[in-house]
Amino acid sequence: MPNKPPITFDVVAREGEARAGLLTTRRGEIETPVFMPVGTAGTVKGIRFEALETELDARIILGNTYHLWLRPGIDVIKRCGGLHRFIGWQRPLLTDSGGFQVWSLGDLRKISEEGTEFRSHLDGSLQFLSPEVSMQVQAVLGSDIVMAFDECAEGNASPDVARASMELTARWAQRSRVEFDRLQANGADTGRTDKNENLSGDQALFGIVQGASHVELRSESLARTTDVGFDGYAIGGLSVGEEKSVMWQVVDAVAPEMPSDKPRYLMGVGTPEDLLKAVSRGIDMFDCVLPTRNGRTGQAFTSRGKVNVKNAQWAVDTKPLDETCECSVCRRHSRAYLRHLHQSGEMLAGMLLTHHNLAFFLDTMRGVRQSIRSGEFTKFRQAFTEKLNEGEQQNALIDA
Amino acid sequence: MPNKPPITFDVVAREGEARAGLLTTRRGEIETPVFMPVGTAGTVKGIRFEALETELDARIILGNTYHLWLRPGIDVIKRCGGLHRFIGWQRPLLTDSGGFQVWSLGDLRKISEEGTEFRSHLDGSLQFLSPEVSMQVQAVLGSDIVMAFDECAEGNASPDVARASMELTARWAQRSRVEFDRLQANGADTGRTDKNENLSGDQALFGIVQGASHVELRSESLARTTDVGFDGYAIGGLSVGEEKSVMWQVVDAVAPEMPSDKPRYLMGVGTPEDLLKAVSRGIDMFDCVLPTRNGRTGQAFTSRGKVNVKNAQWAVDTKPLDETCECSVCRRHSRAYLRHLHQSGEMLAGMLLTHHNLAFFLDTMRGVRQSIRSGEFTKFRQAFTEKLNEGEQQNALIDA
Repeated sequence: MPNKPPITFDVVAREGEARAGLLTTRRGEIETPVFMPVGTAGTVKGIRFEALETELDARIILGNTYHLWLRPGIDVIKRCGGLHRFIGWQRPLLTDSGGFQVWSLGDLRKISEEGTEFRSHLDGSLQFLSPEVSMQVQAVLGSDIVMAFDECAEGNASPDVARASMELTARWAQRSRVEFDRLQANGADTGRTDKNENLSGDQALFGIVQGASHVELRSESLARTTDVGFDGYAIGGLSVGEEKSVMWQVVDAVAPEMPSDKPRYLMGVGTPEDLLKAVSRGIDMFDCVLPTRNGRTGQAFTSRGKVNVKNAQWAVDTKPLDETCECSVCRRHSRAYLRHLHQSGEMLAGMLLTHHNLAFFLDTMRGVRQSIRSGEFTKFRQAFTEKLNEGEQQNALIDA
Repeated sequence: MPNKPPITFDVVAREGEARAGLLTTRRGEIETPVFMPVGTAGTVKGIRFEALETELDARIILGNTYHLWLRPGIDVIKRCGGLHRFIGWQRPLLTDSGGFQVWSLGDLRKISEEGTEFRSHLDGSLQFLSPEVSMQVQAVLGSDIVMAFDECAEGNASPDVARASMELTARWAQRSRVEFDRLQANGADTGRTDKNENLSGDQALFGIVQGASHVELRSESLARTTDVGFDGYAIGGLSVGEEKSVMWQVVDAVAPEMPSDKPRYLMGVGTPEDLLKAVSRGIDMFDCVLPTRNGRTGQAFTSRGKVNVKNAQWAVDTKPLDETCECSVCRRHSRAYLRHLHQSGEMLAGMLLTHHNLAFFLDTMRGVRQSIRSGEFTKFRQAFTEKLNEGEQQNALIDA
């Protein structure tokens, strides 16, 4: 049995619905609201862990169960001592359940009461993922926060389809909880098995609220999820192609009803503006591929809006990407150089833009946390948004 | 006029032909023998300058005139204040002349007395490179060490063909010198024009010995090159597909005859064993794409020979690439993880292997320098080679 609960969460300051909190995990403290860089296949693409730890001070990153299960596979990760040891990252890890990824496969998957049958995107082999399998895989990964296995629905799913999906998710939440507890009791958590690490507590388990765009289904989903009981609660199935207004209707309806003493996680969101808006609705945790994926395709996020480094405008521009950014990329490199690297197809383009983008997201969240603590979040958000909009308008003129 | 000569070179210790020296440039001191990482298009592929400066302590890197001239072009680099400022690297830079690159284009180039006409590998446009143009481009780049414009010959070129090529190189060396001196007198060196940098002296110019595999032509080339007079001398046209034995015949013949008070640079060489052998023949400077290029394709250089990270043998191997290496990659990551990254096509695979490989090359050269200073180079080289061969034999068993 664990000495201490796997995680504790304390709200330390509020401003309206916005909250600054402290999430204490067995591998360290995480100040919230927090943005989690996405490390799909055991690497946050294009950046070294040293930079994530030291300069960027990312306190938690995300791993994808689906990808890691298929490659290198759980046998490999188990024999290498769990995901932390396998990849060389000793800070907290959250793993998703694979539910969203297999749902994304579309025609390549078949969903039943038991679970989801699908063909691997790597070799076409037939695979089966269920609440039990997902919990087993995440126990081997040894992640500090495990996500329940859920079923997503199309953003525009009809009430009937969305209800069926939501109810399936509720039953899977219960099965996830049971299997998770069995595994914890059996000490299956690879991340905890090494005595040298002196880890207290077991893994934590988060539940996921579904229900597509239907707020009444979302409310019911939240009630059924909290009935099962989890260490934290996530809003899933958003940012999957629906209108932004739909996403905010759901967040506005669900967030205030989520247990206030547990962390609230908005999955897969979003732009810097989205993060600040969601924080104002009481969300504590985020993950998104935007800073890393867009970095690899030449797009930088800055305090004055998005910058496309391909733009000929930057050919001889010796200014940094963001004149108010203090990251190592902005301190050293110009827009002209970044454009050259991108045009030349150099790896360093993606590496530097990824670094800057993550720095911008993480710095923004640091500012958010400080502003909530000092009661100036509304002011912070307003100034942030004004500067962003002003810059975007200028960028639009350049692009025109 | 320069206050001080652009570079000075002092031999501080010898053991047989091997020499440890100090090359003082306007941007800092370089202990020799030195390995220069290759930064073709203004980036050492897959590694950030911060890592080159701090952990690896690379004192000088190489840039390619051909690539930079075609993209982003000298107008861009000039307007951005020269290559150092453009890329964000304030330590010494050596640029090649473009001679080797245009020669490598094969059927795409036509060589005349005046220079080389060729089609750009980027857009097929017709371009012309000559000693004068190469000097002008390198003045804009503002590199600390400029290479004379030379003509390479096939490794197996007949005596007549090799003689014609060598004689052309000698005439081009003279034209390079004249144009270089004119440019320096006119203050065309972009790297020096910023008064804030307080750079003393102008750029330095190195001559290149050619003559294919014919040692008598090589000797004549050396005599004609030293007649022109340069700040350092390079052996070019080796490691271009000829037998290794041919390369060593040439090095054995030429190196001892090269001016002993100037740095001796063996271009494009080589493996760690090659570096140590060439040092034993009195060579001071090297550049090679092996650590970076092979790193991107999954090959690591270690003290126990080459390791192919793709090998299934490493699937669950939690040992580092090289158990005696203290680089940040070996301190943190296992062979199993590197294999996973490579198999998954992750950028981080190339980034980490590039870092380790450069660490191994630069650490080896550090060991070489220390051993020459302490009179133990022969012992160092023997121990290094024995360990390498022993490891290679074991690797061969694994591969079999």
